[in-house]
Amino acid sequence: MTSIVSSSPAASSTADSSTADSARAASPAAAAVPDPSPELLQRAVTVRQSAMDLGQCSDRQRQQAVLAMAEALQASRQAILAANAADLEAAAADQLAPALVARLKLDAAKLEAAIEGVRQVAALPDPLGQRQLHTELDQGLVLERITVPLGVLGVIFEARPDAVMQIASLAIRSGNGAILKGGREASRSCAAILDALQEGLARSAVAPEALALLTSREESLALLKLDGLVDLIIPRGSNALVRFIQDNTRIPVLGHADGVCHLYVDAAADCALSLRVALDAKTHYPAACNAIETLLVHRTIADRFLPLALPAFAAAGVELRGDAASQALGVAVAASEDDWGCEYSDLILAVKVVEDLDGALEHISRYGSRHTEAICTADEQAADRFLAGVDSAGVFLNCSTRFADGFRYGFGAEVGISTQTLPPRGPVGLEGLITYRYRLRGQGQTAADYASGERQFSHRALPL
Amino acid sequence: MTSIVSSSPAASSTADSSTADSARAASPAAAAVPDPSPELLQRAVTVRQSAMDLGQCSDRQRQQAVLAMAEALQASRQAILAANAADLEAAAADQLAPALVARLKLDAAKLEAAIEGVRQVAALPDPLGQRQLHTELDQGLVLERITVPLGVLGVIFEARPDAVMQIASLAIRSGNGAILKGGREASRSCAAILDALQEGLARSAVAPEALALLTSREESLALLKLDGLVDLIIPRGSNALVRFIQDNTRIPVLGHADGVCHLYVDAAADCALSLRVALDAKTHYPAACNAIETLLVHRTIADRFLPLALPAFAAAGVELRGDAASQALGVAVAASEDDWGCEYSDLILAVKVVEDLDGALEHISRYGSRHTEAICTADEQAADRFLAGVDSAGVFLNCSTRFADGFRYGFGAEVGISTQTLPPRGPVGLEGLITYRYRLRGQGQTAADYASGERQFSHRALPL
Repeated sequence: MTSIVSSSPAASSTADSSTADSARAASPAAAAVPDPSPELLQRAVTVRQSAMDLGQCSDRQRQQAVLAMAEALQASRQAILAANAADLEAAAADQLAPALVARLKLDAAKLEAAIEGVRQVAALPDPLGQRQLHTELDQGLVLERITVPLGVLGVIFEARPDAVMQIASLAIRSGNGAILKGGREASRSCAAILDALQEGLARSAVAPEALALLTSREESLALLKLDGLVDLIIPRGSNALVRFIQDNTRIPVLGHADGVCHLYVDAAADCALSLRVALDAKTHYPAACNAIETLLVHRTIADRFLPLALPAFAAAGVELRGDAASQALGVAVAASEDDWGCEYSDLILAVKVVEDLDGALEHISRYGSRHTEAICTADEQAADRFLAGVDSAGVFLNCSTRFADGFRYGFGAEVGISTQTLPPRGPVGLEGLITYRYRLRGQGQTAADYASGERQFSHRALPL
Repeated sequence: MTSIVSSSPAASSTADSSTADSARAASPAAAAVPDPSPELLQRAVTVRQSAMDLGQCSDRQRQQAVLAMAEALQASRQAILAANAADLEAAAADQLAPALVARLKLDAAKLEAAIEGVRQVAALPDPLGQRQLHTELDQGLVLERITVPLGVLGVIFEARPDAVMQIASLAIRSGNGAILKGGREASRSCAAILDALQEGLARSAVAPEALALLTSREESLALLKLDGLVDLIIPRGSNALVRFIQDNTRIPVLGHADGVCHLYVDAAADCALSLRVALDAKTHYPAACNAIETLLVHRTIADRFLPLALPAFAAAGVELRGDAASQALGVAVAASEDDWGCEYSDLILAVKVVEDLDGALEHISRYGSRHTEAICTADEQAADRFLAGVDSAGVFLNCSTRFADGFRYGFGAEVGISTQTLPPRGPVGLEGLITYRYRLRGQGQTAADYASGERQFSHRALPL
């Protein structure tokens, strides 16, 4: 499942993106990753140098740079919409899938919302320069840990031209350069947007070269080999694309391949509440990575819940595939082993009746993707066991899995959702684009003095 | 460069390990990574299940488990020392390199110090269950971010049997299972230690199966393919081993391949202070990853500093390799292009006279490994530019690079030093072995209600 950046309440949220184009993504796995050309290396070095300068800019300078980007986008609206119209024309000629065309299309309202999103990113609090640790190691030897930018982001995404605006603004706000590669079908739109963004930067303290757009497929593959120049790869595409990238780079990759979310309706659940949550989690945006794919139902509530749920799902156009027990209660189609753990990204839902809470935990541990799982129950003990025992980035009680999203979590904007175990995990906001650095200031201290016992560490915590 | 775990003031610190065995490490790159055998998969599943239970244990239970491990080690001292003697005998027969033998050897005092280190890990504050974020998304819809264990660590290390005790105690303290693979030459010692650790766990709330020791080379390679069962790989070996692992697993890898640290003596440096720092940084433990490999000297101070430094380095047995300018000032051997960026891990130091601070920054950016760099200067502006502009995990002023170490930083213990850009970065303590999880508790809320505008998010910060 793809994730998108969500930076405005008006815009649909991160998880709301489709896998309609996942079919295309099988191809990169066949391709070999070429070495970067001298020209690409030179461009990457330029982005890196500009990013290092950007990292030295003040909060106010970065804020103004992002606002200047918004201004320039505003001034270039006509050119951007015209470029997008040309992309759409080419898409029609190429008979692009309707879902892709919908994501490619940038009308005046969508562009306006995206520009507003850029302004909102400017207003987010500065993630840089925060002191996370402050320790006196010994008299006159003081350690600090300070947040700093990562350096350069490598972003590979499909179709959506609005993602260029969102990611570029998040990158600049957090002091990072970015090398962006959009889908071929959006090439004219992306180029027009990047032109505007760089025009904006030219009227700020930040060098326009902190952003670069790659245009060829070879370049986007070679990006994976720019270790030392690119610090984080953010793939925004199909499962196959994400896996290919993970397997072909030493650079850390932020994101997730699968979003196989579960809802477990416990013995002590309120049936009406559970049904409302289940319908939202499945039907509000079935292609989203935070939509549920499997419904687990405790056996003692199944004969009350399913007779209520089946007609409601049918009315919502959801196709159910069940195990034997749920079939006995009216699910028409049998689920095969492949259904468990399948990310339908569509109005299809697997249904299984489980023995008890442990059965649900076991099923999730076996088939889940550690994205987001929810329990509906009025039993506090069951809720606590579920919230403590499920090993996913998000574990929810009595609410829809669809809340797993940076905007809804209150982060203002996000770069994606990570299903990795290590932080940043779950919906990732600006804080996923920063790191820290240890600074130690001394007066000539040597390690030998402490090893010999001549001097001792005090390790005294100082105020942050 | 290898890193080791340092958990006691008595023990030498993390960065103090040698690359004497790096020659051996070239071999894995030639080997293919085999798929895990059904037996290994079964063992990994058992470790994971035990780790999930361990993750539910209280602070007190985990603390007691680590203390029980220390007790059992104490009780098994004779067996462990006998096993180590047998390993040493085999090492002598195999004509193992003296440096390796030194690391392999576990005498009574070293074992006692290691057991004391295990006790100290028990005393470290609990890293789990901390609430990092607490937000009311809306009335009755409350989000928390809570620290939780990673799950299972995969640790691959060479020679040092004491590393088994240190890493196992850090793992259990932080609620993680661990699959450990020691060097073949330490196999008897590792097995005896693991027996004791598991005996200790058997007398605690933690299942002994939370720890497992792999014995064959095939198993240790297959460990790299246990994604989904192992959450973090910690390699503790040569550069070649670390690179091989990075290139052959999708599991995140914590650590560093290179430690190419620089000391820059600025125009405004105090010569005596700079010399003291330089000597410590090079000679206190030349094989450590935080030892300097290159000395950069501002041209205006070179003719004062080098005449002072050259005899001091000669007296300390340090071989210098210089650029033309430093040769003109007395450095005997010419440096080749290969010397810049070389990790000698030995009493060899490259010396270069730079034009100015920018020249130093440029050299570091080109040849450094982003581990730790230091500046000696009395010029505050130069210090600030260096501390802000150098892109390494550690940037130091007027003190030795050798302070880059978890114990010296006051973390109590560390699992290694990371030169990755993303956190955890630099010396990594217990906090590198944890992650977080988002918990959301609601009352039946659906995303649709917020998307339609029927309800609004409050995103109100609650007390942590």
